[in-house]
Amino acid sequence: MNFRGSHILSVKQFDRDSVEQVFQVADGMEPYAHRLRMTKVLDGAILGNMFFEPSTRTRVSFGCAFNLLGGDVRETTDVKSSSITKGESLYDTARVISGYSDVIVMRHPQPGSVAEFAKASRVPVVNGGDGPNEHPSQALLDLYTIKKELHSNSRSIDGMRIAMVGDLKHGRTVHSLSQLLLLYKNIHFTLISPTELRMPESIVSNLQAAGHEVTETEEMERGLQDNDTVYLTRIQEERFDSKLEADIYRGRFRLDQAIYTRHCQPNTVIMHPLPRDSRADANELDNDLNQHPSLAIFRQTDNGVLVRMALFALILDVADKIEDTASEVSWYTESRFEE
Amino acid sequence: MNFRGSHILSVKQFDRDSVEQVFQVADGMEPYAHRLRMTKVLDGAILGNMFFEPSTRTRVSFGCAFNLLGGDVRETTDVKSSSITKGESLYDTARVISGYSDVIVMRHPQPGSVAEFAKASRVPVVNGGDGPNEHPSQALLDLYTIKKELHSNSRSIDGMRIAMVGDLKHGRTVHSLSQLLLLYKNIHFTLISPTELRMPESIVSNLQAAGHEVTETEEMERGLQDNDTVYLTRIQEERFDSKLEADIYRGRFRLDQAIYTRHCQPNTVIMHPLPRDSRADANELDNDLNQHPSLAIFRQTDNGVLVRMALFALILDVADKIEDTASEVSWYTESRFEE
Amino acid sequence: MNFRGSHILSVKQFDRDSVEQVFQVADGMEPYAHRLRMTKVLDGAILGNMFFEPSTRTRVSFGCAFNLLGGDVRETTDVKSSSITKGESLYDTARVISGYSDVIVMRHPQPGSVAEFAKASRVPVVNGGDGPNEHPSQALLDLYTIKKELHSNSRSIDGMRIAMVGDLKHGRTVHSLSQLLLLYKNIHFTLISPTELRMPESIVSNLQAAGHEVTETEEMERGLQDNDTVYLTRIQEERFDSKLEADIYRGRFRLDQAIYTRHCQPNTVIMHPLPRDSRADANELDNDLNQHPSLAIFRQTDNGVLVRMALFALILDVADKIEDTASEVSWYTESRFEE
Repeated sequence: MNFRGSHILSVKQFDRDSVEQVFQVADGMEPYAHRLRMTKVLDGAILGNMFFEPSTRTRVSFGCAFNLLGGDVRETTDVKSSSITKGESLYDTARVISGYSDVIVMRHPQPGSVAEFAKASRVPVVNGGDGPNEHPSQALLDLYTIKKELHSNSRSIDGMRIAMVGDLKHGRTVHSLSQLLLLYKNIHFTLISPTELRMPESIVSNLQAAGHEVTETEEMERGLQDNDTVYLTRIQEERFDSKLEADIYRGRFRLDQAIYTRHCQPNTVIMHPLPRDSRADANELDNDLNQHPSLAIFRQTDNGVLVRMALFALILDVADKIEDTASEVSWYTESRFEE
Repeated sequence: MNFRGSHILSVKQFDRDSVEQVFQVADGMEPYAHRLRMTKVLDGAILGNMFFEPSTRTRVSFGCAFNLLGGDVRETTDVKSSSITKGESLYDTARVISGYSDVIVMRHPQPGSVAEFAKASRVPVVNGGDGPNEHPSQALLDLYTIKKELHSNSRSIDGMRIAMVGDLKHGRTVHSLSQLLLLYKNIHFTLISPTELRMPESIVSNLQAAGHEVTETEEMERGLQDNDTVYLTRIQEERFDSKLEADIYRGRFRLDQAIYTRHCQPNTVIMHPLPRDSRADANELDNDLNQHPSLAIFRQTDNGVLVRMALFALILDVADKIEDTASEVSWYTESRFEE
Repeated sequence: MNFRGSHILSVKQFDRDSVEQVFQVADGMEPYAHRLRMTKVLDGAILGNMFFEPSTRTRVSFGCAFNLLGGDVRETTDVKSSSITKGESLYDTARVISGYSDVIVMRHPQPGSVAEFAKASRVPVVNGGDGPNEHPSQALLDLYTIKKELHSNSRSIDGMRIAMVGDLKHGRTVHSLSQLLLLYKNIHFTLISPTELRMPESIVSNLQAAGHEVTETEEMERGLQDNDTVYLTRIQEERFDSKLEADIYRGRFRLDQAIYTRHCQPNTVIMHPLPRDSRADANELDNDLNQHPSLAIFRQTDNGVLVRMALFALILDVADKIEDTASEVSWYTESRFEE
């Protein structure tokens, strides 16, 4: 895959080499993201950060990644303030907005909308989430986190054992991560969910066709055993017909300190795409694990900045120019990141 | 007109020399807007981009223009988050906000509000649209587009023939463009609209008093003939008493490939202030013209950035310093703009 | 108090030396805030400007202060677009957002929320207002303004006479300002309010315990006499059970030119935290004083930028590096600020 000038719309665009190229560039971003150094490689460039659906976390993460490369960010956060409500087509929106920016990140509630937008755009477009469909930078940051966490445990993605837990039917992140893992070898998946919220059959069969082993279960405690990574998810209430229906499943699978100690291996990496639902009736990942060294959820979001910096650098073809404009940071930056 | 430190509130401020000065500076902005070069001439300056009425397109265009000159943008997008709802006067808002920025762009739903704001502001104010009243940068970018498009056809604004089509009663853009065209000579206007949505009589008589020729008609096909430019507009539903009333007129005047070929001259420039309403019942400018070389609607929005850069450069008196801080662009910028 | 890397959550953190350190650094910011010079000392740094409650003025003031130091701003303005509505804890929000920025300003409607957020944040947090609780930068800018205004009158904070007028029960700003004034000596407070909206008893007794003299009255005209400063406040309608209840008090205490001339000393400084309610039934500070040289309300908001620049510079430990990256400003900046 040639990143230069490309849209990033789907995890399906990636082969293993491309994924690893992103990760290698992301590794190089660490001194900049951790404010040990700064770079101005994109000084003068403009990101159009177009969020036609609310998302503070993802929006700020992309904006921050672009700023850290030295670029400026123009932003929209409200679908109602958009001309789309006056009958404007995505084609027109794309033609116009792509005249204002060097690269666009777009989130939109409608599946396929970002790809349609990209077809008309004159600049590269990154899919920041198109409803239940795709959110490729999230899948990349999840996999990047797994790679780094397992590396500390002297393990690798090939041959690992991962449990995915919760609403596997609606969870966009577990779908996309599974898709990326098709590029790797001999992985054992334990899919823990209520029967009604099982991973879609097509994904399971793709995993098996790729030579991976898949176990599906409703029994969390047995399913947790012998994994390198446990990936928890929230009940995606907004994808259910009613709150009542979501309530049936909420709080059914929970990980806390006691369960972790009893059923997981030591060093099992704990992941979650966030936000986690910490209300008493949900609480799929308990706060009593907040200080646990294997809790990787905030390293995950930190890695999101690295991966997004890498995507911008590759798309705009400056990955090998970062150092040219680099300098020391002179303001207070102590103890920010776990190194 | 001396631009240095001036407010830009109305097209009525402009004489022909001032308009042409804006266009000349806008021409010089092209290498920067098209990312062939970058400039930092406004490095350290702050634009207060105050939108008390939604408008993604205009807001981002102004913000982008300021970023391309090297400046920063502080922004507001929601009238409800403003102190105005707590009984604050425009005078107070202006005194306060003008302490935060070097220049302000303001959009507000109430006619005259931006001029009232400007009176109290300590920095120059650009009217980004005050309800149905004025939107001077739109009129300037429309005229700038006409000038450039006609120039490619070896024509000029003086002596041209232009058709304006649609809701000429409510269309702020055709009113302002007509006002600017009072500064030019021997233009033939064909005003195509339902009788109930005719161009206001005062504008028609001003055009005639300036020596222009005006033909009014309800027959689109005949009206389209022999024009250099066709300027289409959307039915301004939000200005009608009810959606039902707007429905009477929606879809009545449409331009598509077949009509264009049959009735327009070759090379007739097609313009529209955007957004165009592409819903099936409206569709005043059909998508089957999207690839037509005479469709200028996206060159229009691109020109908006040039014109807004020019206004900022003139108001802040840096038009002759752009080159001093200019440098090459090193990121991917291929095939963005039609040169 | 050591500012380096510290949270600024409450005025109670400050001793007199710390307050005066902020003021001294703020004095040094004037050439930068007034665009006589520019600095890039925070070039590359990112402010997370997190407003989970609307506030155009405070949000833009903080963002502008950070831009004036050369930094970038990432922003959120809407609580509904936040993961908090999906059950995310403040702990999680803080862990995540603090990975994106070098310093965070947070406003949130819930008292104590910002302190809770700060506990989990990996970067310094400035309280931008947590509901009726605290808004420390406002108190600092109020006191800074008093100091500068009295200095022009050859007076000082120690020994001054100040009248506070209006809704002293709900007014967060008069509470915080009173708290800061505990650090000073021999001040005479005249507290003018309806009995039902009196200053909380605990604050009055703290002032007395610190050796200040306090007079409480419902009679505005007598209360206004012999003061160095009059600090007016708006009836905080949003803190009442109903608009009707607020209406009882609205418009009861008003200052205008005639009252000022008759009852205040010449040069009595007029302050107001803004927004002032200029609707006819409220109008606590009349527009006929807008040109009065003792009206300090817009110097107050201008001072807000200086004080916020000082806080950022101290927290990020660059107060002594401002000059290192300073240069001249080359764009139009005439007659912006009263020097």
